[in-house]
Amino acid sequence: MTATVDLNSDMGEGYGRWSLGDDAALLDIVTSANIACGFHAGDPDVMAQTMRLAVEKGVGIGAHPGFPDLQGFGRRRMHLPGESLANAIRYQVGAASAMARAAGGRLRHLKLHGALSNMASEDAALARLCYAAALEVEPDLVIMVLAATAMEVVVREMGCPYAAEIFADRAYEDDATLVDRAKAGAVIHDPAHAAARMVEMVRAGAIIADSGKRIPTRIDTICLHGDTPEAVAIAREVRSALEGAGITVTRF
Amino acid sequence: MTATVDLNSDMGEGYGRWSLGDDAALLDIVTSANIACGFHAGDPDVMAQTMRLAVEKGVGIGAHPGFPDLQGFGRRRMHLPGESLANAIRYQVGAASAMARAAGGRLRHLKLHGALSNMASEDAALARLCYAAALEVEPDLVIMVLAATAMEVVVREMGCPYAAEIFADRAYEDDATLVDRAKAGAVIHDPAHAAARMVEMVRAGAIIADSGKRIPTRIDTICLHGDTPEAVAIAREVRSALEGAGITVTRF
Amino acid sequence: MTATVDLNSDMGEGYGRWSLGDDAALLDIVTSANIACGFHAGDPDVMAQTMRLAVEKGVGIGAHPGFPDLQGFGRRRMHLPGESLANAIRYQVGAASAMARAAGGRLRHLKLHGALSNMASEDAALARLCYAAALEVEPDLVIMVLAATAMEVVVREMGCPYAAEIFADRAYEDDATLVDRAKAGAVIHDPAHAAARMVEMVRAGAIIADSGKRIPTRIDTICLHGDTPEAVAIAREVRSALEGAGITVTRF
Amino acid sequence: MTATVDLNSDMGEGYGRWSLGDDAALLDIVTSANIACGFHAGDPDVMAQTMRLAVEKGVGIGAHPGFPDLQGFGRRRMHLPGESLANAIRYQVGAASAMARAAGGRLRHLKLHGALSNMASEDAALARLCYAAALEVEPDLVIMVLAATAMEVVVREMGCPYAAEIFADRAYEDDATLVDRAKAGAVIHDPAHAAARMVEMVRAGAIIADSGKRIPTRIDTICLHGDTPEAVAIAREVRSALEGAGITVTRF
Repeated sequence: MTATVDLNSDMGEGYGRWSLGDDAALLDIVTSANIACGFHAGDPDVMAQTMRLAVEKGVGIGAHPGFPDLQGFGRRRMHLPGESLANAIRYQVGAASAMARAAGGRLRHLKLHGALSNMASEDAALARLCYAAALEVEPDLVIMVLAATAMEVVVREMGCPYAAEIFADRAYEDDATLVDRAKAGAVIHDPAHAAARMVEMVRAGAIIADSGKRIPTRIDTICLHGDTPEAVAIAREVRSALEGAGITVTRF
Repeated sequence: MTATVDLNSDMGEGYGRWSLGDDAALLDIVTSANIACGFHAGDPDVMAQTMRLAVEKGVGIGAHPGFPDLQGFGRRRMHLPGESLANAIRYQVGAASAMARAAGGRLRHLKLHGALSNMASEDAALARLCYAAALEVEPDLVIMVLAATAMEVVVREMGCPYAAEIFADRAYEDDATLVDRAKAGAVIHDPAHAAARMVEMVRAGAIIADSGKRIPTRIDTICLHGDTPEAVAIAREVRSALEGAGITVTRF
Repeated sequence: MTATVDLNSDMGEGYGRWSLGDDAALLDIVTSANIACGFHAGDPDVMAQTMRLAVEKGVGIGAHPGFPDLQGFGRRRMHLPGESLANAIRYQVGAASAMARAAGGRLRHLKLHGALSNMASEDAALARLCYAAALEVEPDLVIMVLAATAMEVVVREMGCPYAAEIFADRAYEDDATLVDRAKAGAVIHDPAHAAARMVEMVRAGAIIADSGKRIPTRIDTICLHGDTPEAVAIAREVRSALEGAGITVTRF
Repeated sequence: MTATVDLNSDMGEGYGRWSLGDDAALLDIVTSANIACGFHAGDPDVMAQTMRLAVEKGVGIGAHPGFPDLQGFGRRRMHLPGESLANAIRYQVGAASAMARAAGGRLRHLKLHGALSNMASEDAALARLCYAAALEVEPDLVIMVLAATAMEVVVREMGCPYAAEIFADRAYEDDATLVDRAKAGAVIHDPAHAAARMVEMVRAGAIIADSGKRIPTRIDTICLHGDTPEAVAIAREVRSALEGAGITVTRF
């Protein structure tokens, strides 16, 4: 039996005149793209261009909805009534699905963005509300969740297809949460180190915390960042190391 | 053979805290609702509420996309590159389609809004670009066009299902364009007069200009306004007069 | 010695095509207008029209800044970094000041809006940050604060001119906070009752809680709402009762 | 008598998470900064940071207002009613003035942005309307105009202080308009060439067209771009060449 894993990255995070990250470079490395839907980043043109490129390169297209907060890039927590949040998800997923069809592809997965994702990882009811809203308008979506969190519990309960995700460049606590960015070593900058960790975790079928503790979990996809030159180097190194270790990198 | 006609009105034109028009009253009168898609008016919550009400009342749901100009309510002409305009249409239609599904209905038709509609009625290439973009993401949409204009020529050439529209409260010139609002008599305020004209035009299968000239045309739907108390009275009277004259009011 | 009091109301809360409340009616009743600054409501045109009318009627002009959240009408709590919030206040106050000058008036006071006001009434540091930012760009502003709250403590410590405000249509708890809207009697709908209370409180120089408890406080201004016909009736009745009781209604 | 000239550049054109151009590098070269005001680019945080840096480096601060079109970066022509456009200018200028005061500086000049500038350079009435609106709220502003255009005629008629501007990296037609970007040679990419031209024009007190024709004009400031590495190199070379030729580079 051969291990396989998907590589995903956030993309299409420009807006109008502004671009962010090197989407073209990343699309040669990843197998799934989480594409901003116009509320925190991404406008219809950016979405169209990014999705067309993803289709050309055979990369899976996902909706990456966030809070309606362009200035805050969806990173500021907002407290919307539940039904308003559900409507915001439905709207973004519907728009993304249409843009994917127009680009010659189709929407395959959903990943929540920024503060919305953070809130959903702490609040199972919120996660469920978001996922249910998305599935209501696109029933075949695969839900991308942070491995071994409340998000994963929710999708198991819902019985929907999902992909459990770990981060290439972030250290883990013993409870499978990310080490706070304020702490030393929270973010991994060395491509070789990041790559070696990913091979180890995928082989182990476990998140390996800073302490060495192993937390067994499904690992379906690895999140790669792309908004710095360093990040692209890490992405390349992770893919290369996984393939060198006999792990097949392919869309979930 | 019994004549039939659809009645349509723009709806869901509130935004956040702001409402506009008496959608609930109109939904008891019209058979098709053109629902704003969030760019010039309408947010995901307004769309959801309006669509749910439309589904309850058996009213057909249409996307009513406009320019991305909330302050200008989509009434200011904007000059977008063609591909940007197509993307803006795709995005709005996709979002509207998802919201309609979540409301238990489905998106049936498309009608352009405001300055975008005005520009498309003068520019066949622009009309074609918009309609093609919409059909690309929702191939079964019925396109609502101003009867006897360039818009109708375009949809005939495209071979797509369409509904030709006349206005209940606007006077016509001999070339089937609307009399300029600045001219006396351009807008009809008397419900009985508006109703009598509509019965006459539907029976005649023609637009009847101010001069008395008859311009034969398909008449599939009548546009009713709803943002004043007077307008709701006109809407009621038009429906009542049509039914009194044995014309069946039903969705196209 | 004659008691005097100012009457204030939120205004200019339309946006583009949308209007809200009967500003013209209220401007005949109140002596200070809190005018939205474009972030949660109000666009440059709405601001200009409202301010011109205020100048004509001799009503004092205040900036009423809120969170950058048009869809949520500034009623959703947002967590901005302190410096971002200060910049948002400076920007809105500067814009409002310029619009007031162009309308032939000048900006006299500041009142925080919606969720931002709620948060500032609970958090003295936040209140101080907002007030300091406003005074930095317009040093002569009078700061409007909820009487007997943390806001008033802050402006006393800052030593800046301020106006302490009570509400005409809201019941009070024993600690001078508003009775929760969910409780019966929290909102006063009867104009005569509202008016009698205001006369009593202004005469007493105290907030009178539901329990009858008197909380001595400066009362410089009374907040009147204006977004319902009922509210305008309350506003009229309050003004009339105050004047009938020999209390002079005038700008602070 | 020593010739002097100002160097200006557009700045603060980021928004939220997005940055654009190398403002820090340019602020070491230019003497006046045209700072976006939040409608087409620039948010209160970006404005604050850019203005603080400008104050530190002794660079003059100008308001650079544009159309309310973030996605289009103010480069799409919009047709606003005159009074709406005036209000949009007043609002942006007022906001910029407040932000400048908070940054420890003051607003010194005005330069229109993008499509608004293009429209104003073709339409004297539009230019006059914009300039009058700005001066109404900030009477001491210096108006930056394209040298030898309708804009300059307008400010002369208005009798207000102005600065006439030429472009370092654009070729000119015989009527002092810019050569269309679509034509070969319209944009100058060679720093040495750009610099030599500027020295020649400033010395001559004339725009020198591609044909060699000299169009005598006031030259108060030279516009430098900054959104490419090449552009920064041109900016450095222009400044260096001017100084080498004994021309004093200083704020107008």
